[in-house]
Amino acid sequence: MKKIVTFGEVMMRLSPPGFERFTQTTTLDIAFGGTEANVAVSLAHFGYEAAHVTRFPDHPLGHSAVSYLRQFGVDTRHIRYGDGRLGLYFLETGAASRASQIVYDRIDSAFMRIQADEFDWETILQGADWFHWTGITPALSQGAADCLLTAIQTANRLGVPVSGDPVYRSNLWQYGKRPQEVIPALTEGCTLVLGNAGLFAHLYDIQEKDNEAAAQALRHQFPKVRYVTDTNREQLSASHNRLSAWLYDKERAYQSRTYDIQPIVDRIGTGDAYMAGLIYGLLTYADPQQALEFGVAASVLKHTILGDANIASVSEVNTLVQGDTSGKLKR
Amino acid sequence: MKKIVTFGEVMMRLSPPGFERFTQTTTLDIAFGGTEANVAVSLAHFGYEAAHVTRFPDHPLGHSAVSYLRQFGVDTRHIRYGDGRLGLYFLETGAASRASQIVYDRIDSAFMRIQADEFDWETILQGADWFHWTGITPALSQGAADCLLTAIQTANRLGVPVSGDPVYRSNLWQYGKRPQEVIPALTEGCTLVLGNAGLFAHLYDIQEKDNEAAAQALRHQFPKVRYVTDTNREQLSASHNRLSAWLYDKERAYQSRTYDIQPIVDRIGTGDAYMAGLIYGLLTYADPQQALEFGVAASVLKHTILGDANIASVSEVNTLVQGDTSGKLKR
Amino acid sequence: MKKIVTFGEVMMRLSPPGFERFTQTTTLDIAFGGTEANVAVSLAHFGYEAAHVTRFPDHPLGHSAVSYLRQFGVDTRHIRYGDGRLGLYFLETGAASRASQIVYDRIDSAFMRIQADEFDWETILQGADWFHWTGITPALSQGAADCLLTAIQTANRLGVPVSGDPVYRSNLWQYGKRPQEVIPALTEGCTLVLGNAGLFAHLYDIQEKDNEAAAQALRHQFPKVRYVTDTNREQLSASHNRLSAWLYDKERAYQSRTYDIQPIVDRIGTGDAYMAGLIYGLLTYADPQQALEFGVAASVLKHTILGDANIASVSEVNTLVQGDTSGKLKR
Amino acid sequence: MKKIVTFGEVMMRLSPPGFERFTQTTTLDIAFGGTEANVAVSLAHFGYEAAHVTRFPDHPLGHSAVSYLRQFGVDTRHIRYGDGRLGLYFLETGAASRASQIVYDRIDSAFMRIQADEFDWETILQGADWFHWTGITPALSQGAADCLLTAIQTANRLGVPVSGDPVYRSNLWQYGKRPQEVIPALTEGCTLVLGNAGLFAHLYDIQEKDNEAAAQALRHQFPKVRYVTDTNREQLSASHNRLSAWLYDKERAYQSRTYDIQPIVDRIGTGDAYMAGLIYGLLTYADPQQALEFGVAASVLKHTILGDANIASVSEVNTLVQGDTSGKLKR
Amino acid sequence: MKKIVTFGEVMMRLSPPGFERFTQTTTLDIAFGGTEANVAVSLAHFGYEAAHVTRFPDHPLGHSAVSYLRQFGVDTRHIRYGDGRLGLYFLETGAASRASQIVYDRIDSAFMRIQADEFDWETILQGADWFHWTGITPALSQGAADCLLTAIQTANRLGVPVSGDPVYRSNLWQYGKRPQEVIPALTEGCTLVLGNAGLFAHLYDIQEKDNEAAAQALRHQFPKVRYVTDTNREQLSASHNRLSAWLYDKERAYQSRTYDIQPIVDRIGTGDAYMAGLIYGLLTYADPQQALEFGVAASVLKHTILGDANIASVSEVNTLVQGDTSGKLKR
Amino acid sequence: MKKIVTFGEVMMRLSPPGFERFTQTTTLDIAFGGTEANVAVSLAHFGYEAAHVTRFPDHPLGHSAVSYLRQFGVDTRHIRYGDGRLGLYFLETGAASRASQIVYDRIDSAFMRIQADEFDWETILQGADWFHWTGITPALSQGAADCLLTAIQTANRLGVPVSGDPVYRSNLWQYGKRPQEVIPALTEGCTLVLGNAGLFAHLYDIQEKDNEAAAQALRHQFPKVRYVTDTNREQLSASHNRLSAWLYDKERAYQSRTYDIQPIVDRIGTGDAYMAGLIYGLLTYADPQQALEFGVAASVLKHTILGDANIASVSEVNTLVQGDTSGKLKR
Repeated sequence: MKKIVTFGEVMMRLSPPGFERFTQTTTLDIAFGGTEANVAVSLAHFGYEAAHVTRFPDHPLGHSAVSYLRQFGVDTRHIRYGDGRLGLYFLETGAASRASQIVYDRIDSAFMRIQADEFDWETILQGADWFHWTGITPALSQGAADCLLTAIQTANRLGVPVSGDPVYRSNLWQYGKRPQEVIPALTEGCTLVLGNAGLFAHLYDIQEKDNEAAAQALRHQFPKVRYVTDTNREQLSASHNRLSAWLYDKERAYQSRTYDIQPIVDRIGTGDAYMAGLIYGLLTYADPQQALEFGVAASVLKHTILGDANIASVSEVNTLVQGDTSGKLKR
Repeated sequence: MKKIVTFGEVMMRLSPPGFERFTQTTTLDIAFGGTEANVAVSLAHFGYEAAHVTRFPDHPLGHSAVSYLRQFGVDTRHIRYGDGRLGLYFLETGAASRASQIVYDRIDSAFMRIQADEFDWETILQGADWFHWTGITPALSQGAADCLLTAIQTANRLGVPVSGDPVYRSNLWQYGKRPQEVIPALTEGCTLVLGNAGLFAHLYDIQEKDNEAAAQALRHQFPKVRYVTDTNREQLSASHNRLSAWLYDKERAYQSRTYDIQPIVDRIGTGDAYMAGLIYGLLTYADPQQALEFGVAASVLKHTILGDANIASVSEVNTLVQGDTSGKLKR
Repeated sequence: MKKIVTFGEVMMRLSPPGFERFTQTTTLDIAFGGTEANVAVSLAHFGYEAAHVTRFPDHPLGHSAVSYLRQFGVDTRHIRYGDGRLGLYFLETGAASRASQIVYDRIDSAFMRIQADEFDWETILQGADWFHWTGITPALSQGAADCLLTAIQTANRLGVPVSGDPVYRSNLWQYGKRPQEVIPALTEGCTLVLGNAGLFAHLYDIQEKDNEAAAQALRHQFPKVRYVTDTNREQLSASHNRLSAWLYDKERAYQSRTYDIQPIVDRIGTGDAYMAGLIYGLLTYADPQQALEFGVAASVLKHTILGDANIASVSEVNTLVQGDTSGKLKR
Repeated sequence: MKKIVTFGEVMMRLSPPGFERFTQTTTLDIAFGGTEANVAVSLAHFGYEAAHVTRFPDHPLGHSAVSYLRQFGVDTRHIRYGDGRLGLYFLETGAASRASQIVYDRIDSAFMRIQADEFDWETILQGADWFHWTGITPALSQGAADCLLTAIQTANRLGVPVSGDPVYRSNLWQYGKRPQEVIPALTEGCTLVLGNAGLFAHLYDIQEKDNEAAAQALRHQFPKVRYVTDTNREQLSASHNRLSAWLYDKERAYQSRTYDIQPIVDRIGTGDAYMAGLIYGLLTYADPQQALEFGVAASVLKHTILGDANIASVSEVNTLVQGDTSGKLKR
Repeated sequence: MKKIVTFGEVMMRLSPPGFERFTQTTTLDIAFGGTEANVAVSLAHFGYEAAHVTRFPDHPLGHSAVSYLRQFGVDTRHIRYGDGRLGLYFLETGAASRASQIVYDRIDSAFMRIQADEFDWETILQGADWFHWTGITPALSQGAADCLLTAIQTANRLGVPVSGDPVYRSNLWQYGKRPQEVIPALTEGCTLVLGNAGLFAHLYDIQEKDNEAAAQALRHQFPKVRYVTDTNREQLSASHNRLSAWLYDKERAYQSRTYDIQPIVDRIGTGDAYMAGLIYGLLTYADPQQALEFGVAASVLKHTILGDANIASVSEVNTLVQGDTSGKLKR
Repeated sequence: MKKIVTFGEVMMRLSPPGFERFTQTTTLDIAFGGTEANVAVSLAHFGYEAAHVTRFPDHPLGHSAVSYLRQFGVDTRHIRYGDGRLGLYFLETGAASRASQIVYDRIDSAFMRIQADEFDWETILQGADWFHWTGITPALSQGAADCLLTAIQTANRLGVPVSGDPVYRSNLWQYGKRPQEVIPALTEGCTLVLGNAGLFAHLYDIQEKDNEAAAQALRHQFPKVRYVTDTNREQLSASHNRLSAWLYDKERAYQSRTYDIQPIVDRIGTGDAYMAGLIYGLLTYADPQQALEFGVAASVLKHTILGDANIASVSEVNTLVQGDTSGKLKR
């Protein structure tokens, strides 16, 4: 069984039931999520060993977050408790032409207060087959960024492949650094990078407008990088999207099938579901095309699942991969 | 007022609310259903007399099942209580490309323990205008199969028309018989049979690939059969189907209009809704085309109704039959 | 900040959750609504001052109705309490080809018992920039009709523009008058009238079949009228509509963009949302086309919002007006 | 099996969940109730045949009321449909020193519009063993009062024992009659009367202050009366009551055990539960003491049951009658 | 009509429904509260004018907080919006021997970021009959403390009576000041002070152990103080308390009746309910004993009401004051 | 950190919300429980390592049961999947004099189908500090009984202390054995036995009527037994109990404090909570009195917690042990 390690903040997600708006609801549904933890939960649900590393406040809400991860079988032994808040985010779910809306409330979280040397990565990554990080972590605090760099370097030393999703959120990065100062060193250690020409231009000053050319430029800049990948999403409305993905394995380009998704039940975490599916695929199948198709199908299914994480099974994903999108009742 | 009798198991249906998955829900919504009882509830809701015959355990859950039937006006006086469980099924509702899923938990039910002579069919069928059965009942136990055969033979003796839906579920039939040994004798007494060429090949060794030819072959094999019918369903996704139906009245073929159904609220029991609608139509209208259109429109409406049974009214069905699918608000 | 005054009955709306039918629900969700109050709530939510004038019973349900209005910032100081019931309506939400259904229970309400001189309109309309009424009010009782006439005449005297939505509901008008005897005098004082050729034929005996010609005829009959407007709705199903609107500003015709709306979350109050949006637009923008587009976009958004009133924000409406209907997540 | 007939209005009851107040709730739980129908439901639940006679509007809410009665096995064949509203009442549940509160909304109901000759009592009461009425019915309208008088007289003619609960509610009686003009003629035909000295003074001008003496005076005034009974309730708080009851069988006095009830789950219908229990007891047991104890124990259990009607079983009541109030878990 | 002004933070309160624990709930009920705002809501509910002054973030959660206050008729015109979070607190409700538990999450709130000169107190307090503050506000930040001091001094200048509840919470006061440095100057301007000997010793170095003596010492230290008051609470369990209160009006001592409260529905805000009741009493009744009894009875009722604020009516409070704690159903 | 191993069936528990009865509910709340697993969950929640051994069906309901255990940190690695059902039980919660009621539906469960040699106890018990079993397991099937005997013998061989709760349920034991044939051999290997004179008479033919004497007789019959213990429960009603416990440590008798518990939120699993508390106490404290008090206080707290398992913390239990039952709010 493969073992994957992820590192990042986990927030409590609070959302009005159904299509209620913030200003009319009297109740909030609880879920937990964080882009890296979502990957871990999905991989654990696919049957692999997944350990998530993070830091929580030592009070009942922090404990609930741990319970959430444990219930899906995620290994939580490396999680640490300390001062600071539990990050929260409030989610209002849109429909048709009304967009979903997120109010973040993650300031001064226990995760942000992480110290560079808080985790013993040597031990944590022992025996791991994959390590995954995203651009949220280094955007939160210097401690988190330092800690992540150590993790990646340790993974490199131990020969553990690393995937990076250097997503950029402009409202983070408030501790004095710009992403361009931090992200390249993290990308250095990656085997797989998620992103497109636009993002690479912003982060790495890559001038190619075309995804393929940009991917090759990225590989030249960071020679460890073998895979470059991203999804293409056509947003017809908050309830209706079309999705496909592409993957470069060194020079070779792969393009997935395109899926029509309607209605969308929960849009959050569909990118993480893609990443988890792709990692599963690359760890399981020899053929990159098969890995790519597994990733997209996993993401497609996530759109029908409430919560941040993709709790679809391998067999459900494979039903889609094999071309059956009929949604036929399973008895 | 017409009187219809149905016979079969009724299960408690437990389903996570909305689109929640089994592994994330903390609550289950209760409904009750069984393919034959669904037909009875729908016909009672259309304003006809409907009596359902079954066997329940004599405890609060069995009593709740009776309450459920009674609330729709189904005559429950012939129901018997005894040992055994209340059959259950767990339903997870899918969306888009995620299929709905059923976990059956019906082993050793009070219904399965039925004795061949447990019901006085002579009395029960007195004055009835129709009797309906399905292939689930003879698949459950020898006692249920024997009991059903007696019911059909009594109906034949009393001149009560019989409809049969000889649906085949491979995971039933665990008491030592194969359907081919049991179903033909039951089909013998039928005026109306639901099914298509594929099913007839499996059950009756009819080799015709085409539905029309297969229907005629069936009528030759079972001379009492006057009507053969089935629905055509195009499954675009778990949320989007297209539906039509066909009917052979002796040699004459009828084809219904096709409906586009989106979104699907509850797919379960839509076949039973068709059967109830068709029986209502055949008992009410002289024109088989009208009966067929009533049946399909009834089934179409059921896709928008929660629970196993079609609680649409005759006037709602007729709105569709008359071509208005605009869903315009009724004040 | 502009100030708008509206006048009309507010009912408690009771609806089964989700897609449950009346005969299967065990709980009813509470909202409050009335076509004129919906306009007030929407305008208050857009940030303008809105005062609603009505009459409630002096018991906890009447107080709840006031709380509802107050929570959106509607000025409730002119509301009066007295004898009579709180009007109710029961709403069942449809889907696909199953229509939504309303059971009204508004007989003998506190509003119907209004006396002609119950309100001091001189004070209420002081400083107002707009007054809005609909054809529901004069259909309820002689007192309500008289009171409304006084309000319109006072508005005219004070130079406050008046909009009228002379909607006709055949099951109202039970106090002995026909709409043709009452509505014209009310229309007399209007700057803006909502309706189409069919309605104008019925109410004002205007024979033009074409909306444009009928609008011009209306302006000739009622010289104060400057704007005539209405929406065009194509009802594909209870879950899927297409919507646009047109506006005549004196001789000049404006036509809005057309929106595809799927799925519809709540169809009730979408006409009121259009009216509120249009009033907002006319009070805010110099260009009638911009006002019209704001109105339609407001109405489109309302289809995605639970309850009678449009609690979309100006910026959400403008996102649509600017052409973005992608429903892209806002962080 | 004994057969009981009851006659009276059934209202939809709408109550905020748990201890929420009217002005803070966003949802209302649905139940149905009416003092006479509550007696019918309880007796049907005890296993006797119970038929309830009433009149409903012919719309989905009226149909829901019928479904409610049917689900408990109450015979609804004599119910008629017609014009008028479905009576409603809104219930807020109190706790400790905060009282429960009811807002009635029953004006102009379909029941109030009953015609004197609307029901064929001869047929309805055929084979009945008991008929029960209360003082609510004659307080609603002349038609209802007339209809009830016919029912009682028919029962007397057919030899069916009659029980009357001539409860007085001052906010009813709005059709021009005083109870003193109407109730005595109804009491005339009774075998059993519920009430105490205070009520008898008010209705029948009986001057005795003591319940026993007043009961005897009542029996002298109405010679058909054999049983006089009432409960004694000590109200310590909305959550804590003490309850007992007394019964005069001709000259002989019986006094029940006293029960301590804490916490009270639902206080509504506990008097009706007593009446149903007592009727059950008198129809089942030879010993009036046993009947009385059954009645009180039934009422005590009702305090723990949500809704208007007592859905306790005979065996649960008998557990209390036999002295076990330990609430010990039944496996 | 009297007008009261309050000033302080309002937090969103999130609590698991019923008796669920934090670690097992999947949903949180929303309420809003803050000790001073609770006083304002209660006084508004009693029918007086109440204005609450605070500062919220300008996002949907801040707007919801305003909606909450507005729905009870609290004047929210003086509320300001700005940067910072919406303070939150998570509440788990206990029962019997299990205590209720609060997790505060109020760090860096918009309220804490208040500037000393953010509000124009001269305008706000114009025409006011009372100003109320508590010890939470000066414990949050220097800006809040400064702002409060200005408010009190302005009230003094305008002749508006001031009440202070100098409650001490050790986990606040994190901005570098000790309460002893701040509270005395605020107490200086008070007419009424809530507290007992223990609190006064801590805050004002008053050595008297007895409440009466301590109250007199307080009055010597702060000559403006006329009333000193506090509640006595006997905590038998989380579900069962006994409550009374005392009041010194200058030299004269008043002692209230003692109430037994069981079961407790919601313990939060019962002290604020006392304060609101007492202020109402002092502004309404000439007799301090009557004011005191009104305050205690108000607090007693609050224990039966969900949420932070006492939404009991004056007539409900007076029912208790007049000695009726029977909780008898009000029809 | 201590490590405890438990073995037994885990069922899905389905219960109507609040005080709803089976026949009136439309929804069921999900929990999971089993007497031995409840002990494991409580001990895990106290912070010890707890592993539960059982067998589930390999479908989503079985997976949900595992998720439930995992979320509390119970080690589920030794759980096996196979054929058979997931055992269920339906629970209706009583109040006051209405008893709670359980309908078991556990026939033919995956656990019952356990094979004697299905688990490698040598590995499972390696490093364990305690093993716990109950009389439910050997009552279910020969395979379960055999498997348990192996577990106890292995524990004995490895020097792991064993506790047994030989509870007798007459409706189990349907596989042909009587408890007297099976339980003694299991008791043989126990260090601690839960039970009283009545149970010991039934199971072991011990004639002593007094608990102390019976305990000593038990120790003579089974020389390994060091501790004998049980709770004393006075059942005043379904909502009000009094609880204490006693413990014999060899010859020495200990008696706990008595607690008054009102209201009871959830009575299920309170015995298991005692056992978990006692095991925690014996593993943690040198003084048996302290262990005993910890056990009783744990059980008392469980009465206030929904679900089968005690999710109180060590510090909450110790608050009670130290005498504070005031339920005072913790901030």
